Amino acid sequence: MEDYDFLFQVAVILCSTKLLGILTKRFDMPQVVGALISGLILGPSILGILHPTDFLNQLAEIGVIVLMFNAGLQTDINELKNSGKSSFVIALAGVIVSVAGGYFLAFAFNTGHENFLQNVFIGVVLASTSVSITVETLKEMGKLSTRSGNAILGAALTDDILGIVCLTIMTSAADPNVNIMMIVVKIVAFFVLSVVVGMMLHRSIQKWMSSAGRDRKRFAIILFAFCLIYSYIAERYFGIADITGAFIAGLIISNTTRATYVTSRCETLSYMLLSPIFFASIGVKVELPEMNATIILFSVLLLLLAIASKVVGCGLGARLCHYSNSESIRIGVGMISRGEVTLIVANKGISSGLMNPMFFGPVIIAVVATAIITPILLHVVYKSKAKGYSDLVESPLVERYQEVSEFDLATQTILDLHHQMSGNPDGAAEKKQPSKPNNGETK
Amino acid sequence: MEDYDFLFQVAVILCSTKLLGILTKRFDMPQVVGALISGLILGPSILGILHPTDFLNQLAEIGVIVLMFNAGLQTDINELKNSGKSSFVIALAGVIVSVAGGYFLAFAFNTGHENFLQNVFIGVVLASTSVSITVETLKEMGKLSTRSGNAILGAALTDDILGIVCLTIMTSAADPNVNIMMIVVKIVAFFVLSVVVGMMLHRSIQKWMSSAGRDRKRFAIILFAFCLIYSYIAERYFGIADITGAFIAGLIISNTTRATYVTSRCETLSYMLLSPIFFASIGVKVELPEMNATIILFSVLLLLLAIASKVVGCGLGARLCHYSNSESIRIGVGMISRGEVTLIVANKGISSGLMNPMFFGPVIIAVVATAIITPILLHVVYKSKAKGYSDLVESPLVERYQEVSEFDLATQTILDLHHQMSGNPDGAAEKKQPSKPNNGETK
Repeated sequence: MEDYDFLFQVAVILCSTKLLGILTKRFDMPQVVGALISGLILGPSILGILHPTDFLNQLAEIGVIVLMFNAGLQTDINELKNSGKSSFVIALAGVIVSVAGGYFLAFAFNTGHENFLQNVFIGVVLASTSVSITVETLKEMGKLSTRSGNAILGAALTDDILGIVCLTIMTSAADPNVNIMMIVVKIVAFFVLSVVVGMMLHRSIQKWMSSAGRDRKRFAIILFAFCLIYSYIAERYFGIADITGAFIAGLIISNTTRATYVTSRCETLSYMLLSPIFFASIGVKVELPEMNATIILFSVLLLLLAIASKVVGCGLGARLCHYSNSESIRIGVGMISRGEVTLIVANKGISSGLMNPMFFGPVIIAVVATAIITPILLHVVYKSKAKGYSDLVESPLVERYQEVSEFDLATQTILDLHHQMSGNPDGAAEKKQPSKPNNGETK
Repeated sequence: MEDYDFLFQVAVILCSTKLLGILTKRFDMPQVVGALISGLILGPSILGILHPTDFLNQLAEIGVIVLMFNAGLQTDINELKNSGKSSFVIALAGVIVSVAGGYFLAFAFNTGHENFLQNVFIGVVLASTSVSITVETLKEMGKLSTRSGNAILGAALTDDILGIVCLTIMTSAADPNVNIMMIVVKIVAFFVLSVVVGMMLHRSIQKWMSSAGRDRKRFAIILFAFCLIYSYIAERYFGIADITGAFIAGLIISNTTRATYVTSRCETLSYMLLSPIFFASIGVKVELPEMNATIILFSVLLLLLAIASKVVGCGLGARLCHYSNSESIRIGVGMISRGEVTLIVANKGISSGLMNPMFFGPVIIAVVATAIITPILLHVVYKSKAKGYSDLVESPLVERYQEVSEFDLATQTILDLHHQMSGNPDGAAEKKQPSKPNNGETK
């Protein structure tokens, strides 16, 4: 009967990640943190209920692919081009400072085993920004559509792409048997292929979507399969991380007619099963390091670096793009928070030997701490000088970001309407008002 | 790099099941048949691209659990009670004739290896009815809300429950080390537990659902986890099939306020990933038997039995309940089609040693053939005598059946509205009309 243990494991992961996620959300921290902690508690480090199994690992791999696919789907290249130069400069400055800072920090703690790539990788882990916490905070404050809010959004999205490029170079270079020229050729070949495939597929997908009738499911399923195939091809034939492939697959499909629908279906797939398993499995894999002085010092310095690198880097970048001093500080602060992508990159680093598992603890601490600190600092910098000064702008980027969550809201609204029209908020009593069935309406 | 083959396998399954599903649907056959055939083609029998792996098997197991969970969610015990006695009599008569007929057919082909249970099991496989094909056909003909249409719907739903009871008894009895008293005690204990848990949980789930705000996701996730746990408990501690547990978990939650929402989320999870993998993996497992005379004869007789058992059994049952002769024939014909549950039961039978894998081919032939024949026969029996005679009735059962597909339609409608309001049917052009973002509307 041991065969059925995987059912128990999946159930425990779903329950615990959701319950802890609700808890962390109540403390204004992202639900991801809760999922991570639940994996940590259930895993070998503490309770020992969960152990990494092949099944969970493979499901988690599909989970992270879907996460990156969704990230790609929600990135609109055209709009990034428009919001353009300043987002790029801000993001790049932040990434450069993070990578450089990470390298020097890791170098200082070099135990003699690490090489150049491993030191740089600590910086790559710090490079990406999690936009969701900042966006939620700014939305609540009514500041999302300010000039600075818009710049943060654009820069955070650009960050993801820069982070993916760094990760791709790093993981490709991690295999010691491959020479550097080969790596460069493969990466260039893959990106050229992606551009060609992207341009060819984008048009035909768009045509296919316009021609078909009401059955939207097929788009979601076939395009999800496309994402898996593309991830597989990246990993198998180009030695490039599967998540890079998934992200690019998402980019190719984003901006087509049904992208919102595809995204919403993949998000359901993700939150119902796959992403809880991914984040819990990260927690399960964490080896709690002995908290010696070195590790504690490293954790503290890593956290300070995580904060300083974005405030200084992105702030300078913003100043270069002619934002005011107070706007530049706001932008820098808005870029502090780290999240999913940081964890995804760190996880990939461990599995490809680029990161010492010992550093996973400090990285998680940095993710959790920045998630707590960012909203607090945002309140400080936005409230201090904002009196009587309105810099609201119209932003297609902000709108696009809200589209998917609005879609979910629309679904909920129609459900509520449906219940109200049935004369009650309680589905169980619907049978009280039988109306003449309208045959064939669902075709 | 072999590690990443599972991505390729999942992608191939998703693509091929969907494409063949679209094809079979065009020929008025259920998409399930296409999924099955694609597994057969990709599997070792023909192309050999797919082989059963632990990962696919475990994912398929979760897939069948979700299918049965959804079946339970969409079964409304209270309404079955109301539609009541006649549905029960019709269904029971059909099941008895099927099981008896299956036993005698299997007995006649007894090769000396089969025992009593295995002979009976062929009948159990034939017991369940797939309501979806009949419902779709009747809907198109505008006959779903006739007296006979309603009786078919009620009886087909009752069939599922009777089929589950038969399956539970059979699989529990399959273990030769357990004595019959023990089996009976365990089954009774499990159903008593289910009633107690059901009554307790139904109330508290209802309360929980009313108290919580907009975040519906938690209901779907936690209740899906509950379904997995219940399946696990059934299998692990009572020796009862996990799919029985899943079906009962669905029954317990059905009729709560958010049941429709939970169903729709689980359906997305199912069609995006899990059910294609389940049906394809059934196809993969099929060993195409050498088509000797015996197997061909068995296939033909099994198909004839599948048709006759329901026409005779359910027809007699309907006649007993004072339906007219023509109505009784219609009801009998409407119950012919077999589908998912038949395949699920046969699959379980093979894995628990109750069915000779040799018979899987004939069972699949019967499923496919009845799916083709039923709509044709329905047109014949409903058109022949229906002139000037209307027996339309109001039926809450019919409405409930349509609810979930309406929910999906509602989602699509709002999406279309959304696109129209953005001034175009093409999402890519949405940025042309930026409107002032409404901050905080998604909370």
